Amino acid sequence: MDAIENLQNLLKRLPGMGEKSAARLCYHLIKTDDSFNKALGAAISSLKEKIHPCPICGCYTEDEICKYCSDSDRDKTTLCIVEEAQDVLSIASSGAYNGLFHVLGGAINPLGGVGPENLSFPLLMKRIEEGSFKEIIIATNPTEEGDTTALYIRHMLKDRNDITLSRLAAGLPIGGDLGYADKLTLARSMRGRIRL
Amino acid sequence: MDAIENLQNLLKRLPGMGEKSAARLCYHLIKTDDSFNKALGAAISSLKEKIHPCPICGCYTEDEICKYCSDSDRDKTTLCIVEEAQDVLSIASSGAYNGLFHVLGGAINPLGGVGPENLSFPLLMKRIEEGSFKEIIIATNPTEEGDTTALYIRHMLKDRNDITLSRLAAGLPIGGDLGYADKLTLARSMRGRIRL
Repeated sequence: MDAIENLQNLLKRLPGMGEKSAARLCYHLIKTDDSFNKALGAAISSLKEKIHPCPICGCYTEDEICKYCSDSDRDKTTLCIVEEAQDVLSIASSGAYNGLFHVLGGAINPLGGVGPENLSFPLLMKRIEEGSFKEIIIATNPTEEGDTTALYIRHMLKDRNDITLSRLAAGLPIGGDLGYADKLTLARSMRGRIRL
Repeated sequence: MDAIENLQNLLKRLPGMGEKSAARLCYHLIKTDDSFNKALGAAISSLKEKIHPCPICGCYTEDEICKYCSDSDRDKTTLCIVEEAQDVLSIASSGAYNGLFHVLGGAINPLGGVGPENLSFPLLMKRIEEGSFKEIIIATNPTEEGDTTALYIRHMLKDRNDITLSRLAAGLPIGGDLGYADKLTLARSMRGRIRL
């Protein structure tokens, strides 16, 4: 197997990459400046060596504690719960939120074999018990799994009347995916969040 | 700039890759097995070190001469002229062609500043003069530039009555791109090629 074939086979394993797209990308890289290929190759190779999940919130970081958890300017009384680490980036860059985050690592999906025990609920409960949160915003995806997860969190916190529980407002297209929402839509649903 | 941001910025420079797709791909790589990232990174980094254009036909190879030029089973009396190296792969894998190839390195495009002098016409003429071709198939893209190039080749060979000149048949969508055609369409247009 030659270098081109090898690269194409690897590229085809990426999400959304078919035979033709892989070939196209491969020939694009052949025509690109070699320093770019070297930089891209090194960035991919070393990615998982450099980053690890933040031990507090679960989003990815190169430091001991992530930039959100260690930022003293962020509001320590508000917590935003998301499914995946990339959702933290989407919400942070919407500019409508300045509190802390918690990454669950997915959503409850009984048919897919994902129960609450597979997600970071123990860490979440510990944070809520030890922290001083006044509001918790559930920012799971507007899907069946995300709604189930939101319901589970509401049930989990039903005795905590001191904490306001909210959910990202409608505005996100139902059945969609938080990772593909534009900043304006995200910002709007953050401002118009509804109390559960 | 951290590792994730760095990789996203590099990915965004790839064709067809926007901000969201780059983020999605980046987080996919975080979740992937590290050995895959290492293999993909190495394949991208080393790509241009391993391959070079074949000195005869211009398609990419790791050997001194490419596998098409060095294959004694291929019909040495037929030559297929394509714009780009990836078109060789598309046509070879259609299964409808067993001759030699010649890669022009593009198509004549006066508005884009690409004249015949920027393409490998001298090498092509030398091959035609020294070779024993009975048929030459022009497989440039069915675009204005591809048609112009086909016309130029026909003009170039107008005194060679011993060579049959043909062009890939209709069947390729006009204004499209050879790299995206499916194998069946390509095979059909190869079989139904029309004499110029």
